[in-house]
Amino acid sequence: MAYHLLQRDHEGAQRLASSLDYALQHIRHCEKCNNFTEEVVCELCRSHHRDAALLCVVEMPADLLMMEQAHCYKGMYFVLMGRLSPLDGIGPREIHLDRLLKRTQDGLVKEVVLATNFTVEGEATAHYIGELLHDKGLKITRIARGLPVGGELEHVDSGTLAQAVIERREM
Amino acid sequence: MAYHLLQRDHEGAQRLASSLDYALQHIRHCEKCNNFTEEVVCELCRSHHRDAALLCVVEMPADLLMMEQAHCYKGMYFVLMGRLSPLDGIGPREIHLDRLLKRTQDGLVKEVVLATNFTVEGEATAHYIGELLHDKGLKITRIARGLPVGGELEHVDSGTLAQAVIERREM
Ligand SMILES: [Zn+2]
Ligand SMILES: [Zn+2]
Repeated sequence: MAYHLLQRDHEGAQRLASSLDYALQHIRHCEKCNNFTEEVVCELCRSHHRDAALLCVVEMPADLLMMEQAHCYKGMYFVLMGRLSPLDGIGPREIHLDRLLKRTQDGLVKEVVLATNFTVEGEATAHYIGELLHDKGLKITRIARGLPVGGELEHVDSGTLAQAVIERREM
Repeated sequence: MAYHLLQRDHEGAQRLASSLDYALQHIRHCEKCNNFTEEVVCELCRSHHRDAALLCVVEMPADLLMMEQAHCYKGMYFVLMGRLSPLDGIGPREIHLDRLLKRTQDGLVKEVVLATNFTVEGEATAHYIGELLHDKGLKITRIARGLPVGGELEHVDSGTLAQAVIERREM
């Protein structure tokens, strides 16, 4: 991309450079949710229209956006900016679990919703956080696994169908 | 297919005719689970290695096969041979709900697992059966909706993510 910009689009390159420069100078991590923001505490964390008793843990800023687009959740967030991956040298410190632990102890948070991915690393991260927050007087929940909305038994993989049966819910 | 067989494969046509003839004469519906069988009660329903306290309701024989391939369930089945679809003239009678009701009253069944599809018709069928079996002293469960095994928040549709959050489970 850089090569294309330098070769064909000098003006675009200049604009990109300015934007990056601006971002590097102004973008920081929100003190509460760890998401990118230009302020000390981001707009979402400052909102009075959200439920302070719910704290949803996601891996990346894009996951927070997906949650907001699904219009299913009106609580607060904590963005790990990654997931546990010991082989890549990403441990509890790198995903800021000390800050997450502190964040949950504000006296308002009652439930922590673990919304990391259902990949091996996302699952390991959820379990680690579950252990970390165990016995802290919080309800710890995990988003559900199962069939997609509109899904048919014939078109899901065996592992997903098995989880859907294991995690069946009383009607 | 019939045209191809008549034109090119007389012997195949003969074999197909015999198979169909045999099936029409010998295949019937199992008295207990309503699946296709050559016997009065099918092999699965006669098995002593399955849990008679669990009854799983599926739409079609193919769904029963999917359940068996997922190796997650060791109970009994009831195959509706369809799903409620009023516009197509398929009502409670056509999917044998009178027989299902009777099947659940054998004194052994404790839980009915509704494993119809998560399509509009499959959902309507599950709700109808839930109402029908309400107050009959049975536990009624529905297989879970949510993210697939290995799934990432970024790659599921909003509706599925919303359900996964709504149906989150305590860890
Ligand atoms: Zn924030
Ligand atoms: Zn049977």
